[in-house]
Amino acid sequence: MRIRVLGSGAGGGFPQWNCNCANCRAVRAGAPGFLPRTQSSLAVSANGDDWLLLNASPDLREQIAAAPELSPRRDDPVRASPIKAVALTNGDVDHVAGLLNLREAQPFSIYAARRVIDALAANPIFSILQPQLVPHIELPMDAPTPVNGAGVDLGLKLRAFPVPGKIALYLEDKNAPNFGTSVGDTLGLEIIEMATGKSFFYVPGCAQVDAPLAARLRNAALVFFDGTLFEEEEMIKQGLMGKTGSRMGHVNMSGDDGSLAAFAPLGVKRKIYVHINNSNPVLDEHSSAYATVQAAGWEVGEDGMEVSL
Amino acid sequence: MRIRVLGSGAGGGFPQWNCNCANCRAVRAGAPGFLPRTQSSLAVSANGDDWLLLNASPDLREQIAAAPELSPRRDDPVRASPIKAVALTNGDVDHVAGLLNLREAQPFSIYAARRVIDALAANPIFSILQPQLVPHIELPMDAPTPVNGAGVDLGLKLRAFPVPGKIALYLEDKNAPNFGTSVGDTLGLEIIEMATGKSFFYVPGCAQVDAPLAARLRNAALVFFDGTLFEEEEMIKQGLMGKTGSRMGHVNMSGDDGSLAAFAPLGVKRKIYVHINNSNPVLDEHSSAYATVQAAGWEVGEDGMEVSL
Repeated sequence: MRIRVLGSGAGGGFPQWNCNCANCRAVRAGAPGFLPRTQSSLAVSANGDDWLLLNASPDLREQIAAAPELSPRRDDPVRASPIKAVALTNGDVDHVAGLLNLREAQPFSIYAARRVIDALAANPIFSILQPQLVPHIELPMDAPTPVNGAGVDLGLKLRAFPVPGKIALYLEDKNAPNFGTSVGDTLGLEIIEMATGKSFFYVPGCAQVDAPLAARLRNAALVFFDGTLFEEEEMIKQGLMGKTGSRMGHVNMSGDDGSLAAFAPLGVKRKIYVHINNSNPVLDEHSSAYATVQAAGWEVGEDGMEVSL
Repeated sequence: MRIRVLGSGAGGGFPQWNCNCANCRAVRAGAPGFLPRTQSSLAVSANGDDWLLLNASPDLREQIAAAPELSPRRDDPVRASPIKAVALTNGDVDHVAGLLNLREAQPFSIYAARRVIDALAANPIFSILQPQLVPHIELPMDAPTPVNGAGVDLGLKLRAFPVPGKIALYLEDKNAPNFGTSVGDTLGLEIIEMATGKSFFYVPGCAQVDAPLAARLRNAALVFFDGTLFEEEEMIKQGLMGKTGSRMGHVNMSGDDGSLAAFAPLGVKRKIYVHINNSNPVLDEHSSAYATVQAAGWEVGEDGMEVSL
């Protein structure tokens, strides 16, 4: 399996258009140790020719342009794409807006939870993807689903599972418990290569590493995990926004309740943080936070990173 | 007035993600005479500090990153943006999807026709822009409207006027005349600098240069105009799509009914094509089409082009 990190940033990317925090100022100035990052998406292929996207970020056009394997080959028909399917982990803007880049009458399949399919259907702008060309396929919970698109079998299965999280910001109901969040609003995905049985996990949004999630990830070969925040209150401390990580549905890296501690006993062979927010000190390769996650055996995801499994 | 072409391409940009036409193959290969182009947008400023965007393309994050004047200054507050307002000429994906890049609780104003404001309101995803921070202001027809945003007077006025065109693709009603198109679905804009009275025109989508439009543009100092297609049937001839320019709401450049002929007697001082589709032969600087438009006194818009007026 080939995996490419298309975008390793969280919503807004790095730098974020309206952010003037120390990290964003540094990356804009080209300071050493700071890499620009586009928004959250991975691409996966079993055969190197046909690709499944994991989330469709608003930066998708730029991400495709940076990845030669995602453009038509010279001898392809006049309209063609190696992108045959897109799987969505939630309905957040940073994970679904890129679908609008996949217009122009090209067939592919969308895999998502029923809640996310319904959220897309409630927005007429997404009808730019014609239903007869772009089927929306519901991902059942915990049942491996073969991935097909544009008449091609991708040789991959998706096993979707709910993780602690939050409904998309634009769908929040201020009067409902946890803003109206329900099962299916935040998924983790296990991506399984059918020929070999190898698999990896993709969990870009997760509010807590609870016992069921820890059990599922134990001894995994590879996990891409929510790296939004280093600290629960870093957005507030930096004066960026009055929300904690919990309020946004993202577990922090550090601390007793953080992902570093939660993963320590799990024996995961390769651990890569993605969906990294511009406020996170790990975006500075010279920071103590970066040293901490490296010492704990984690990698900080970068755009264009390629992983083979 | 300072004007920056953020994106000179039509919907899909150049290259387009799923297009393997001769132009797209050439620009992907880095062939001489072919420049990549992002999707359709301009930025305008009277004072060089506060900016009005004309349309918000899906490539807006990349476009902002390429234009230092559109990012916060080093001594700005921790959240800030020089972008104070966005004016929309229609509801097409290539002109409105970029609004989703302007989330993150930043105040600015949106100016658009009532029809386009209603189209946005019908899509809950755009509620990510909180109404109390991002007012939607209706552009009246043919009445100069001062541009304000985030409490700043931009020193500009917008005069909106209807031009021949078509409703956004995702809003088409197959059973209605001209797919349900009505007044306000396609605007031209005159942007007026209040301090000097200087003005220019921006008409990125237009199905026909009719007599009222010709009269309005006569002797203008500067016009950015719809450069989608060179020929009415070029999409069909190249096997890209079964639609004529007329069907898409875009006048061709060439021929008796084209924009080259229509502008010839108008005395416009500077004429720049924007919204140029990947199929258009003018994207090859060595083509006879390019030579033709140059000989007629037109410029072919490029990303990053700056114009002062």
